[in-house]
Amino acid sequence: MVSESAVIIGVGARLGVGAAIAVKAAREGLHVFIAGRTPAKLDLIVDEIVAAGGQATAVIMDCTIDEDITALFEQVSNSGTVLRLVVYNTGRNLPAPFMEHDVRLIEGHWRRCVLGGMLVGQAAIRLMQQHIDENHGDQLGTILYTGASASMRGKPLFSGFASAKAALRAMVQSMAREFGPQGIHIGHIVIDGVIDGDVIRSVKGLGKLALKLKGEDGALRPDEIAQAFWMLHRQQPNSWTHEIDLRPFKEAF
Amino acid sequence: MVSESAVIIGVGARLGVGAAIAVKAAREGLHVFIAGRTPAKLDLIVDEIVAAGGQATAVIMDCTIDEDITALFEQVSNSGTVLRLVVYNTGRNLPAPFMEHDVRLIEGHWRRCVLGGMLVGQAAIRLMQQHIDENHGDQLGTILYTGASASMRGKPLFSGFASAKAALRAMVQSMAREFGPQGIHIGHIVIDGVIDGDVIRSVKGLGKLALKLKGEDGALRPDEIAQAFWMLHRQQPNSWTHEIDLRPFKEAF
Amino acid sequence: MVSESAVIIGVGARLGVGAAIAVKAAREGLHVFIAGRTPAKLDLIVDEIVAAGGQATAVIMDCTIDEDITALFEQVSNSGTVLRLVVYNTGRNLPAPFMEHDVRLIEGHWRRCVLGGMLVGQAAIRLMQQHIDENHGDQLGTILYTGASASMRGKPLFSGFASAKAALRAMVQSMAREFGPQGIHIGHIVIDGVIDGDVIRSVKGLGKLALKLKGEDGALRPDEIAQAFWMLHRQQPNSWTHEIDLRPFKEAF
Amino acid sequence: MVSESAVIIGVGARLGVGAAIAVKAAREGLHVFIAGRTPAKLDLIVDEIVAAGGQATAVIMDCTIDEDITALFEQVSNSGTVLRLVVYNTGRNLPAPFMEHDVRLIEGHWRRCVLGGMLVGQAAIRLMQQHIDENHGDQLGTILYTGASASMRGKPLFSGFASAKAALRAMVQSMAREFGPQGIHIGHIVIDGVIDGDVIRSVKGLGKLALKLKGEDGALRPDEIAQAFWMLHRQQPNSWTHEIDLRPFKEAF
Repeated sequence: MVSESAVIIGVGARLGVGAAIAVKAAREGLHVFIAGRTPAKLDLIVDEIVAAGGQATAVIMDCTIDEDITALFEQVSNSGTVLRLVVYNTGRNLPAPFMEHDVRLIEGHWRRCVLGGMLVGQAAIRLMQQHIDENHGDQLGTILYTGASASMRGKPLFSGFASAKAALRAMVQSMAREFGPQGIHIGHIVIDGVIDGDVIRSVKGLGKLALKLKGEDGALRPDEIAQAFWMLHRQQPNSWTHEIDLRPFKEAF
Repeated sequence: MVSESAVIIGVGARLGVGAAIAVKAAREGLHVFIAGRTPAKLDLIVDEIVAAGGQATAVIMDCTIDEDITALFEQVSNSGTVLRLVVYNTGRNLPAPFMEHDVRLIEGHWRRCVLGGMLVGQAAIRLMQQHIDENHGDQLGTILYTGASASMRGKPLFSGFASAKAALRAMVQSMAREFGPQGIHIGHIVIDGVIDGDVIRSVKGLGKLALKLKGEDGALRPDEIAQAFWMLHRQQPNSWTHEIDLRPFKEAF
Repeated sequence: MVSESAVIIGVGARLGVGAAIAVKAAREGLHVFIAGRTPAKLDLIVDEIVAAGGQATAVIMDCTIDEDITALFEQVSNSGTVLRLVVYNTGRNLPAPFMEHDVRLIEGHWRRCVLGGMLVGQAAIRLMQQHIDENHGDQLGTILYTGASASMRGKPLFSGFASAKAALRAMVQSMAREFGPQGIHIGHIVIDGVIDGDVIRSVKGLGKLALKLKGEDGALRPDEIAQAFWMLHRQQPNSWTHEIDLRPFKEAF
Repeated sequence: MVSESAVIIGVGARLGVGAAIAVKAAREGLHVFIAGRTPAKLDLIVDEIVAAGGQATAVIMDCTIDEDITALFEQVSNSGTVLRLVVYNTGRNLPAPFMEHDVRLIEGHWRRCVLGGMLVGQAAIRLMQQHIDENHGDQLGTILYTGASASMRGKPLFSGFASAKAALRAMVQSMAREFGPQGIHIGHIVIDGVIDGDVIRSVKGLGKLALKLKGEDGALRPDEIAQAFWMLHRQQPNSWTHEIDLRPFKEAF
């Protein structure tokens, strides 16, 4: 039997959304290609997955560079696996007053969210379409994008980030409507709240304080988030979800 | 150990959303109270659940009558179980030109969607709050409401139905924001498409034809829908979903 | 030449949205039928309009009573004028915790917003359609509904009001899509903020304090709101607006 | 008395939205700076405005080039006028399947809609803020952005355009919330439908046929659109509109 694979883009520290999805997908039997910028971080996750009996390959890449994306999907294509799940989990929320946004800042948001999201989507769809004759039923594969509350509406200090996240959401809606009928499930997961992971913990002093003030269950746990991604991937094509929100129970929204 | 229970309101034919959720919840170990208008239909489902080793109680009621709702939740309260899940799954989509809507029609939509939804929500919250001292962590229980594409926007022929479903959605958003911080997870599931169940099959001739034209996976399957309801119920309070859409892969949206 | 008329429903104190629209429409040459519950208030406005050379008729009515609505539109029909503008400006924002909403409260919201809005819309459309053969070009008339920020999303304390206002919005969307192609312009004006009128001023002590704290231009002025209603009415059918928001420049949204 | 000025960016053929707004603003007494790429087109409009007794200056520029934008606003600053209105009216709707979107295409959409919109917004705000001490009441100026139905949701064939227009909308929302309290009115006008202008007429054969099939009032007229822009500019700060839609009466939406 041919084994199946997943590509998770935007994998960083072990306690983060990308890593949690990778660990979950590997546990469920997929060979996971985990893509990120920092070799040491990826290696730790690969080691953990392999130690638990799973299959994982680290791919160093920058999600805004066309050649890196091409190389990543070629590696997947040559692996002999059938690609079934792609997760695009990028974007950095950097608050700044509108007047302090410069070309570099807003272009960076756009490249990480929209340009990378488009190139990854195209490469993923191309690869999934190659397996259209195999016995997949109505379902070729799943492509999921990480959104944020900024995807839904603009706010002061988030002009650039909101513009990039809203752009990604509109592109994902377009893709879902175009490729759904071809059996490719394209979805958008809106994460609204602080994630209890290495990013917040690394904010010196304040990060741990912020988590403490949030209280138990006041911040999203990466492994719970990963469950939602996995649930969408497992849905049968008669009942697909195209957008889902995730937030802590105390979060104002 | 005290056993847990679920109340599913709007249970009709075996092949329908309400019944599928009841069967799923029973299989997962909850004592299910299934409420609907037709004794014979409820009995069939209770028999099936009991035969499979589960626990189920049929409750004949009308979701628009205050006394019926009170009686239902008293019965649950007296059962010695702890109520953990309530599903409100009502509303009938009856297309009609705006000028043919009369008071009875639009009031019927409102009573089934909004009034019943409010009374059930209040009774459920009251019962769940009684168990606040027990060891539930941050999570007292889950209340889920069934929505439709009409919940999201109005269309010709659906003035009345859209008004009632949009009203329910706004009420559910208000409830979610008010009771989320108290540990009650309140969610809205938007079902967009034809459901492959007894309702459509009973439309003489045309119903089965419609399903056939939709093709495989072209109509939502009640057991798949039930998975989504259950997934929301199982979410940990650090990562709650408040709205989710479900539609067949070919459905235009 | 046959004169044209407007019906403004929900007219109360002189310093309010309904009165301001009536005064504006009369100034623009329409015979205005102003409908409300309090004769003394209506008479003051009629007197002012007539003193300024305009035409106005007071109609005592309850916007939730079918017979009152029928009588109002019969009076308009018998007036020999051609009905061109109807404004439905009702609904009272009464904050209350969800658990304190009773049947009477939520039904009251629904009757004032949705039931009345439907009956008025039907009567207005019926009357406007009678003039379809006259030389109106593509434009028979305009029907405008007053919305609120609660029309757009639910919030704690506003379960009932938000449900009724969201219901009205969905109904108006359905109507706009059904009757736009027939030349009836149906629109929804979202008023978001405190209105600088007699309602807030009558809240003893606190009302005037609230206005003062808002500062100059911190509360919506009824005559400015009336401008927006009038602008929608004057739009040519090649460029109709179906929803517009209005809020003070400092208002958070 | 110091004269006031407007900057209209994205002015092309006479029968177009940009030109119609320029003509309207000039007629209302503003000195209009009209910016576009084609000198001959701009000159025609300037000549028409001047012949009618208005004041207009043509500025050749590319809305995606930082230096051009800086030069434009320096010219306005040096003109001795007080800038009160800026309109950003750019973006080309080029349908293409998702798989045919390349970096150049999607980056072009983004540069025209988002990057240009940001740079123009910053330059406009900077200039308006200089006049904060003068007697403007609460209102420094107005900045309006042209949107499209693609601003609201994605569709097949419009992945790139929808992503750029949704991004612009989110950025405009952020700006409106940040600068509204400072007295700068920032709004978004959603134009949904075919515009009866030189763009559609220039599509050989098919353009005029399309207009004919739309029928009278089936396509938006630039001068009607200009009315809506002007209405937003004239709103008093106690009642600002932040988003408005415009579509022909027959348009499905």
